[in-house]
Amino acid sequence: MIGSFVQFVPASKAAGLREVDAPNSLVVHFGADRPLKMDAGVSLSPLTIAYQTYGDLNANKSNAILVCHALTGDQHVANEHPITGKAGWWHTMVGPGRPIDTNRYFVIASNVIGGCMGTTGPASLNPATGRPYGLDLPVVTIKDMVHAQAMLIDHLGIDMLLCVAGGSMGGMQVLQWAASFPDRVFAAMPIATAARHSSQNIAFHEVGRQAVMADPDWRQGRYLEEGVIPTKGLAVARMAAHITYLSDEALQSKFGRKLQDRSAPTFSFDADFQIENYLRYQGTSFVDRFDANSYLYVTRACDYFDLAADYGGSLAHAFKGSKSRFCVVSFNSDWLYPTQASRAIVHALNAGGASVSFVDIETDRGHDAFLLDTPEFIATSRGFLDAAARARGIAPAKSGAI
Amino acid sequence: MIGSFVQFVPASKAAGLREVDAPNSLVVHFGADRPLKMDAGVSLSPLTIAYQTYGDLNANKSNAILVCHALTGDQHVANEHPITGKAGWWHTMVGPGRPIDTNRYFVIASNVIGGCMGTTGPASLNPATGRPYGLDLPVVTIKDMVHAQAMLIDHLGIDMLLCVAGGSMGGMQVLQWAASFPDRVFAAMPIATAARHSSQNIAFHEVGRQAVMADPDWRQGRYLEEGVIPTKGLAVARMAAHITYLSDEALQSKFGRKLQDRSAPTFSFDADFQIENYLRYQGTSFVDRFDANSYLYVTRACDYFDLAADYGGSLAHAFKGSKSRFCVVSFNSDWLYPTQASRAIVHALNAGGASVSFVDIETDRGHDAFLLDTPEFIATSRGFLDAAARARGIAPAKSGAI
Repeated sequence: MIGSFVQFVPASKAAGLREVDAPNSLVVHFGADRPLKMDAGVSLSPLTIAYQTYGDLNANKSNAILVCHALTGDQHVANEHPITGKAGWWHTMVGPGRPIDTNRYFVIASNVIGGCMGTTGPASLNPATGRPYGLDLPVVTIKDMVHAQAMLIDHLGIDMLLCVAGGSMGGMQVLQWAASFPDRVFAAMPIATAARHSSQNIAFHEVGRQAVMADPDWRQGRYLEEGVIPTKGLAVARMAAHITYLSDEALQSKFGRKLQDRSAPTFSFDADFQIENYLRYQGTSFVDRFDANSYLYVTRACDYFDLAADYGGSLAHAFKGSKSRFCVVSFNSDWLYPTQASRAIVHALNAGGASVSFVDIETDRGHDAFLLDTPEFIATSRGFLDAAARARGIAPAKSGAI
Repeated sequence: MIGSFVQFVPASKAAGLREVDAPNSLVVHFGADRPLKMDAGVSLSPLTIAYQTYGDLNANKSNAILVCHALTGDQHVANEHPITGKAGWWHTMVGPGRPIDTNRYFVIASNVIGGCMGTTGPASLNPATGRPYGLDLPVVTIKDMVHAQAMLIDHLGIDMLLCVAGGSMGGMQVLQWAASFPDRVFAAMPIATAARHSSQNIAFHEVGRQAVMADPDWRQGRYLEEGVIPTKGLAVARMAAHITYLSDEALQSKFGRKLQDRSAPTFSFDADFQIENYLRYQGTSFVDRFDANSYLYVTRACDYFDLAADYGGSLAHAFKGSKSRFCVVSFNSDWLYPTQASRAIVHALNAGGASVSFVDIETDRGHDAFLLDTPEFIATSRGFLDAAARARGIAPAKSGAI
């Protein structure tokens, strides 16, 4: 449980990848004495975890909330992002007076393993070779991500988390936490997620991976050493994925068939339509902040996720006898992880005898609703966390809610 | 209205593109005296149309049915495909004893302009330069496709079509026929389609185009002259599109999370899952039969399609006073062109005073249901066409139905 700060090694010269080696974050380094045993059957060592905290840990260490990030999210939940300069990805949910109230709770968020914001990932230096791991990093699973987080939580000296919360791939980690460490999770909020990746989910991820790998600048994953970046392939991957994050209705009401800075179609392959311009922007801006190989790893982790598989094929067994309290949240226009997938989780929790509330929130915003200021979602989260905090005897916030 | 057979010019040496110059089809060639006036504001000449026919035209030329193909379909509706060797793409619907009964009707199907199976497209030789058109071909619209088909129908000496039928992009052509040539369409079957491309529809197409253009072998569209083919980009485009053709349920029941020829995940980026293997196959096999630039053109044609736009923004005006009879068909699990899009067509037809029947078919097969042997769809089509034929006094089939 001894942590030390990582040595900064310039594995990558790409501007957008500077966080890999020198994250603007807290970092903890686990040496050879603390390897991570991975699902792939190998041990990973050394292991660096980059993380952020917000608020103060109380005396009996009972007010810690772990936030798990989604596919391309990171630990910068509620602070300005060091690359993009934008607000943290969950600033609607985390901060003073927010549902995850940093005046009341101690909030922890770490970059997942396989990521590219400071935690060990494919762009990190492989000490065995002196080169970036590339595809030599073992394939990572959701369970591996959670086990690494548990090492961090150990390092911080916290036995039980008041809550583990996250959406999308973050929600998968929440479910894995509840299954793997039931005694360390007082409350759990899996949001807009699924207990296993569907065939369609895998299909979209595979398209993204093939787009990256089709880019000749991917160089079999060795692009960093060769001084190139598969930006075009990664941008296409992001564009395809981005469509799945929004509902058909949201796209129609936001963009429809509106033209981009012109009054008539140009009869060309330019971005005539606003939706085209928007997607191209999403693609090109993504490559500035995300590593292409990391994209392969995190998508693969989701695809491999099938929580029931580790419990004889029964999701209910994964939660059997759990004392954690759950709040499962879905959004009715989310077609990536549809309400039905959340309902399957609820059924399993019920069958396992767990305490669970389930809210399917009506919105036209699609999957991304969990990242937006969706009032019913904010209120649901606030109520659930407040009840959990009271049950744990945690004092109200130091200052009033906003 | 004089047609002559096209001169075969080897514009493309790519095996899969041999049909561009030397189609295994009937061909009609329109010279400088018969240019196609295109929406892009230019006239295209010369114009070659490759087409297939099945059955015999009756004496008063009243039994002709025009079949319009979808995005990557072609004129090979009911015969062995000259490149793939597979059965025609609509062999379930067209043939002796089928709903579009070739013992009773004279069936015509032509490759759309912008295509790559013999009709003038970006891989065709541009007589002005002696090189393939590439992106010098004007951008094509659905209306351009229909106007070219009308030239073919003129050439065949047919005044009124008994029916125009087609699914997906084929359905768009059906709607355009009904709007542009109401006196030449006795009956119309727009299937699994929409009167305009939605924002999400455009988004998926844009991803496909960007995937093609991201491939360095695309060479700004000049790949044929440079002896390369952007196969990787086109394969990624096809993979992404293919997901939209199937429903979530169909993917889950067909593939689920089943592994491909292995008993456990490999912890790699191999195609562990059957769905991955299937998509990769769809991608790589597609590039053998389809031209990358054609893919840009046909997707763009769909994106530009907004039938109401030509009628003051009112779809009802497009069909006002139409004497054609319509059978609109949708499939309840089609999320590419959902039932709602067909319902909008039906509302407009009703508002325009047209004769219309509407069938929303319950199936889990998604958009591709129109290509499959979906019993209710087959029965609906048979009934609608039979009634139309009787109304036109067309004799029953020469031999019994199968």
